[in-house]
Amino acid sequence: MALISKVEAGFYRIPLEVAVSDSMHGEMLAFELNTVRITDADGAVGVGYTYTCGRNGAAIDAILRRELPELLIGEDADRIEHLWNKIWWAQHYGGRGGPTVLALSAADIALWDLKGVRLGQPLWKLLGGNADRVTCYAGGIDLDYPLEKLLAQTDGNLKKGFRAIKMKVGRKRLSEDVERVAAMRRHLGDGFPLMVDANMKWSVDEAIRAARAFQPCELTWLEEPIIPDDVAGHARIVREGGLPVAAGENLRTLWEFKQLVATGGVTFPEPDVTNCGGVTAFQKIVHLAEAFNLPVTSHGAHDVTVHLLAAAPNGAFLEAHGFGLDRYIAEPLRIEEGFAIAPSRPGHGIAFDWQGLEALRA
Amino acid sequence: MALISKVEAGFYRIPLEVAVSDSMHGEMLAFELNTVRITDADGAVGVGYTYTCGRNGAAIDAILRRELPELLIGEDADRIEHLWNKIWWAQHYGGRGGPTVLALSAADIALWDLKGVRLGQPLWKLLGGNADRVTCYAGGIDLDYPLEKLLAQTDGNLKKGFRAIKMKVGRKRLSEDVERVAAMRRHLGDGFPLMVDANMKWSVDEAIRAARAFQPCELTWLEEPIIPDDVAGHARIVREGGLPVAAGENLRTLWEFKQLVATGGVTFPEPDVTNCGGVTAFQKIVHLAEAFNLPVTSHGAHDVTVHLLAAAPNGAFLEAHGFGLDRYIAEPLRIEEGFAIAPSRPGHGIAFDWQGLEALRA
Repeated sequence: MALISKVEAGFYRIPLEVAVSDSMHGEMLAFELNTVRITDADGAVGVGYTYTCGRNGAAIDAILRRELPELLIGEDADRIEHLWNKIWWAQHYGGRGGPTVLALSAADIALWDLKGVRLGQPLWKLLGGNADRVTCYAGGIDLDYPLEKLLAQTDGNLKKGFRAIKMKVGRKRLSEDVERVAAMRRHLGDGFPLMVDANMKWSVDEAIRAARAFQPCELTWLEEPIIPDDVAGHARIVREGGLPVAAGENLRTLWEFKQLVATGGVTFPEPDVTNCGGVTAFQKIVHLAEAFNLPVTSHGAHDVTVHLLAAAPNGAFLEAHGFGLDRYIAEPLRIEEGFAIAPSRPGHGIAFDWQGLEALRA
Repeated sequence: MALISKVEAGFYRIPLEVAVSDSMHGEMLAFELNTVRITDADGAVGVGYTYTCGRNGAAIDAILRRELPELLIGEDADRIEHLWNKIWWAQHYGGRGGPTVLALSAADIALWDLKGVRLGQPLWKLLGGNADRVTCYAGGIDLDYPLEKLLAQTDGNLKKGFRAIKMKVGRKRLSEDVERVAAMRRHLGDGFPLMVDANMKWSVDEAIRAARAFQPCELTWLEEPIIPDDVAGHARIVREGGLPVAAGENLRTLWEFKQLVATGGVTFPEPDVTNCGGVTAFQKIVHLAEAFNLPVTSHGAHDVTVHLLAAAPNGAFLEAHGFGLDRYIAEPLRIEEGFAIAPSRPGHGIAFDWQGLEALRA
């Protein structure tokens, strides 16, 4: 047993090398990175992080600096369930979502990293050890790319070893989306896994119409067709649209996933470990999905998530998409013939370039 | 039309005169107050606020200071729906709950106050004008009070003009709760509106058992029997417990209310204007409830909420319970023979003692 002796927060603004855009967030030029380092009495360190599309990082930082040290210092670092619930309930009234859950997620990742480091096991093995790799896809943020640029990006991704591709939809007219997806399908050939992502752009009826229009393109899934709040709407899209539906990057709790899963509103639950409540909550969502006979995919933070999907029998199609963060990580994610390889380093194995980050403090 | 020229945030820690406790939050010694003042180009000012049980105020302050001015300054203050959605979507990724919604609620209250001030109307009239008063109850935070102290507090509330009382339940053994509630019923007499509040303490089965045990006491409602996340559980408690159920102080969006209402999980939806998305969202919840033939009660912030419940035909039983805030407000809520009186001053009519608050900056 080692007690927690230090909790340190970092808050950075990471510029994107190329501006990206999707149907709801518009153009993004930078993202915010919040880190937390948890040190125990033996000097062992666990690292966690979360990120935003450009807002609320200051609020997350306030929680990591002002609330978490008091809640964590002096506690047994191995009692993660206890600590998760202590943080959850201490912050419940002003919390239950938003920056509070993002901060909790970062802290929980750090605690699991610390546990892995202390036990000398990589997370994928510590958490289940189903396999040391998981199928993976390249998530393009390319809604406004002209078709040629979209296909050129795709060729680049194929060269990098990806064997599954996701593209954005939600352009002004559905016919444009259909043309672009059809062109992508012709480019990739039959049977190549292709997903599309609408980023909450549509109404339920629009989403059903789109799903039906995409039928000939044999998509692996349609992602986030509508706002995350409309559970019954998701169930209609799954039933009436005829395409598998992925959703969850904007759900913030196990219970929000339970609602969507139990209502039949999702085919591929898609938690983000940095905003769903960390490794602890992500694992429960994976197990909930297994109980409902569903595969789980992921959003963001691929370096942590590769462990979590590799650990479980129902993990599938890790999203590889790290904004510009790879530049500040010693050994970024390895892709081989369509698989993401779970590192064998203890914990999650992410080594941040803290000196490089220092210049980007927000 | 007047453009917004200034957005100023305040963050205070208000000590409680007497420590309070309930079944989930434990002992509370102080609460956090976050204020926001929005000034337009003509110099008119609207004031909004939100509060927490003691944590996350720093995160709310970070949002009010760091995100909102940029989103609001230069905008037409009267286009509140546009501004609400602009803030909602700008903060959506790191938001959709928690401190983000509390900050949005404060800003929205300030915008509605500003509109009332400019138009020279009190909010209750501007928003519907159903009546200038609404039934009201005294919300005791008294779980750990010995019975005598509980009854003495009740006598004090009767003297203040209250004609409805709520008490806490969720003690170690259900039989203790039943004895205390029965004693309170005998003290108040038949027909006097009495509510109980479990603050999320129970499992679904425990809540149903408690509801049935309370039947002889003829309660107006059982409040927050379980965690807000379990929608199906609420529906079972309403159906099988046989008591009206109040819930909502821990729901943060119109959509969360829609889920609970449409599933039949609540009899008295109970939004808090300072955490459900402000006046804009509160009104929509009131209208949603009316469409489902339900009355609406409230949580917290009685000085603002008196307007919102008085405005609507289905407003009922305002909760009077302002922590220690009354000391810092020029004209606190007036109670007359069981009714809370909606002020005739323009806007919400709350005048904070800014100098007095200055000493309490967090």
